[in-house]
Amino acid sequence: MSTQSEAIQVDLNSDMGEGFGAYRMGDDAAILEIVTSANVACGMHAGDPEIMAKTFSLAKARGVAVGAHPGFPDLWGFGRRVIPFTHGEIERLVAYQIGAAQALSRYADHPITYVKAHGALGNLTQTDEAVAKAIARAIKAVDPNLICMTFAGAVMERVASDMGLSVRREVFADRAYTEEGNLVHRSVPGAVLHDGDEAAARMLRMVKAGAIETVSGKLLPVQIDTICVHSDTPGAIQMAAKVRSTLEGAGIVVKSFS
Amino acid sequence: MSTQSEAIQVDLNSDMGEGFGAYRMGDDAAILEIVTSANVACGMHAGDPEIMAKTFSLAKARGVAVGAHPGFPDLWGFGRRVIPFTHGEIERLVAYQIGAAQALSRYADHPITYVKAHGALGNLTQTDEAVAKAIARAIKAVDPNLICMTFAGAVMERVASDMGLSVRREVFADRAYTEEGNLVHRSVPGAVLHDGDEAAARMLRMVKAGAIETVSGKLLPVQIDTICVHSDTPGAIQMAAKVRSTLEGAGIVVKSFS
Amino acid sequence: MSTQSEAIQVDLNSDMGEGFGAYRMGDDAAILEIVTSANVACGMHAGDPEIMAKTFSLAKARGVAVGAHPGFPDLWGFGRRVIPFTHGEIERLVAYQIGAAQALSRYADHPITYVKAHGALGNLTQTDEAVAKAIARAIKAVDPNLICMTFAGAVMERVASDMGLSVRREVFADRAYTEEGNLVHRSVPGAVLHDGDEAAARMLRMVKAGAIETVSGKLLPVQIDTICVHSDTPGAIQMAAKVRSTLEGAGIVVKSFS
Amino acid sequence: MSTQSEAIQVDLNSDMGEGFGAYRMGDDAAILEIVTSANVACGMHAGDPEIMAKTFSLAKARGVAVGAHPGFPDLWGFGRRVIPFTHGEIERLVAYQIGAAQALSRYADHPITYVKAHGALGNLTQTDEAVAKAIARAIKAVDPNLICMTFAGAVMERVASDMGLSVRREVFADRAYTEEGNLVHRSVPGAVLHDGDEAAARMLRMVKAGAIETVSGKLLPVQIDTICVHSDTPGAIQMAAKVRSTLEGAGIVVKSFS
Repeated sequence: MSTQSEAIQVDLNSDMGEGFGAYRMGDDAAILEIVTSANVACGMHAGDPEIMAKTFSLAKARGVAVGAHPGFPDLWGFGRRVIPFTHGEIERLVAYQIGAAQALSRYADHPITYVKAHGALGNLTQTDEAVAKAIARAIKAVDPNLICMTFAGAVMERVASDMGLSVRREVFADRAYTEEGNLVHRSVPGAVLHDGDEAAARMLRMVKAGAIETVSGKLLPVQIDTICVHSDTPGAIQMAAKVRSTLEGAGIVVKSFS
Repeated sequence: MSTQSEAIQVDLNSDMGEGFGAYRMGDDAAILEIVTSANVACGMHAGDPEIMAKTFSLAKARGVAVGAHPGFPDLWGFGRRVIPFTHGEIERLVAYQIGAAQALSRYADHPITYVKAHGALGNLTQTDEAVAKAIARAIKAVDPNLICMTFAGAVMERVASDMGLSVRREVFADRAYTEEGNLVHRSVPGAVLHDGDEAAARMLRMVKAGAIETVSGKLLPVQIDTICVHSDTPGAIQMAAKVRSTLEGAGIVVKSFS
Repeated sequence: MSTQSEAIQVDLNSDMGEGFGAYRMGDDAAILEIVTSANVACGMHAGDPEIMAKTFSLAKARGVAVGAHPGFPDLWGFGRRVIPFTHGEIERLVAYQIGAAQALSRYADHPITYVKAHGALGNLTQTDEAVAKAIARAIKAVDPNLICMTFAGAVMERVASDMGLSVRREVFADRAYTEEGNLVHRSVPGAVLHDGDEAAARMLRMVKAGAIETVSGKLLPVQIDTICVHSDTPGAIQMAAKVRSTLEGAGIVVKSFS
Repeated sequence: MSTQSEAIQVDLNSDMGEGFGAYRMGDDAAILEIVTSANVACGMHAGDPEIMAKTFSLAKARGVAVGAHPGFPDLWGFGRRVIPFTHGEIERLVAYQIGAAQALSRYADHPITYVKAHGALGNLTQTDEAVAKAIARAIKAVDPNLICMTFAGAVMERVASDMGLSVRREVFADRAYTEEGNLVHRSVPGAVLHDGDEAAARMLRMVKAGAIETVSGKLLPVQIDTICVHSDTPGAIQMAAKVRSTLEGAGIVVKSFS
């Protein structure tokens, strides 16, 4: 969505609705003032029907597009661990969660328009073709009109396209990239950017260039449709706000792709 | 569906897909040879995405219609206990489960056509108007074309009709009825019929009369669209088979209402 | 424990370790600097083995006594709802949780010395003799040396004593009391005190008088062994600190009963 | 326990109490008539407080010794999958489960005397020293008098001994052994023995020889203290009975090691 004769356009997305019962995670109200797409947890690694319905309603009130954010059924591990499900099981797990999100988003009169895999499941889609296919098949079976949001350059991008799904490509505001265009592992120093100004300036360079900027400063051309920002620390909210204001200050249109 | 100038027609339904992980409950393969509608557990009191997808596929292969069978999120209690959720929470819980069932039934290429509440949640719909409304609202919000299956004579019947939903009315092959047409509580002697011949003969009388037969033999006119049979004991399977053969032997057409 | 010829002595307790997986609830580090007894959630309404072991270790490092804090198995409802278990089931549920807490407190080299029921389960022990007996039986069967902490004036107090258990009686720093000495229901205006100074002054009056002060100012004589304070809001931490400093400023010894 | 001047003695153990809520797994009543030790699930991969207490009571009534049978917290996968917990987390998970089993076995007046890891967790102890140490540390911290039951020849055997725990070594009635003395993977043809007579004859040879018999017939000397039999199929119960009668027919004393 980034190349139009006039203004460049980009979406800002964030994970949301990640509480469970009495628990809360992240400042959804604050991040909803900043982003244009909300990835809503579907009840297996986080989220429950109450939180889902409420998050869809809040997003609607703020004009923020919504998507299903399925993960491994692992509340204990918050979806950050690879649970050894087979590819077939992943397919059904994802289908289940998309359906639940469709129902509650319709209930809130603000239907989901996309799907983005969460945490460990999302990370697998960077390089694991079988997992990528399982998720793409689930989306296609439940509703082929749903857009597949995935890491720019991930195996998932090609797999979903080949299956006929619409794809939107994402970069991360606070994550460093390897020379191959993958995320630097969190255990490596410098993997996560903490400075909002630096992150915002880097995002502006990447969106204008239509390229991932690696740790060495090399530019890898990719289509950038959306930028992922976080909400679970005060610094994260400020970084997200800075990314948005920096982009808009440079004439980029920050807008949902839906 | 029972009064046509020619043959009387009735559906036979049974709860199904009630395992979880490695656990199984009931003989789904056997009961699928007998019934015409399968109520599929949605993962909160029983069921998981694997079992749901498999049950939808098995039902499709046998030409059996399928419906969502939502219950309280209570795996421990198998949905048989009233968990103190508010009416609003019940509404979202049911919407969630319908959505999950829609997704996996589409995945299995055999979409659900109806919703029937399970266990303690279903029992509440006999007399609790607020719970009945919560469930009817959930159905309507997610997909107003879904049929609401409910106890013949339940508050739910009127509530769902008033809300514009299609309704199908159910009687129980193995449960005695009070003079008011409610189920005799399980703790009362005689509440549950164990003799297949007796149950089948009673069902035939009820379907032909278009009436509930109470414990005293009184007939309370109701529309009977479907008969609920069970699968979780060997005797239950035989009773279900006997009900079907008795009805068909008397010229009743046993057929899905979908 | 409150009446000695010299100084009056009282314990301060708080619920702790109430997170689950990646979720947190309350500021355990802050409240551990204030209280003398920590009620540790046992994994059924909140808590997991990691959080339990860590909480026991933190309490040990600060010289804070620890107890098991069992509740209904209801992570969704945080143990605040009455789940319809039978009395026998409650007995086994509580035994299970006490055992788990014993094991992890031994693991942390800081064994639990008492048991206090959480949330809805605790509230039942005020007036429900069968529930009180179930919990007392569980304590006695697992380890009769464990102390039973309960609401001052609760049915549980008598039941546990009659069964031969040691009992410690608790009042709440932030809850109003009816003329009968029960907690004013949360739905009633004024049920919860929000002003730290007011709460602290009231606690000082109650501890010095050895009596519950009702909403009308009447004093109902009871033995007060411990005061329950909270940690889940910034105001709660400040109230707890104020209660402690007010008591100590008046010469009361704030000390664990263990 | 197998070498005494007089009779050879061996224990027979089986996994038990593996239901959850309304679900059941295996025929506990039948297998309790055959075995001398019952490994009781602790509520994380299977089991709940009701089932645990009942299983301990049934075992007591039949004079069968009981042990804790902890597994990964994975009800969905029945503890048969490796869930990526750290070694420290495994240590706390196992301690938690041992404590719960201690409490409910005391409640049933039939205290556990040993611990045996379940499923995927147990399999890891064959070769993974860090996992073996985590489990041994948990046992030692909770109660150093508990015996560690483990695969004959497993890394766990040495690790637990080195830590000062008593160890009992187990062979499997229905599993083939590699030339190295490990279990042949289930995916390999012949990995599981289905013929009761063959299994019983092999067990008799192994117990008399004090050696594991590999698939080629080679004998690897080990101490055999106990034989694991199953209960989850009709054939399994018959095989267990045949193993017992064959051993006793040859003068072996079948008796708990506790």
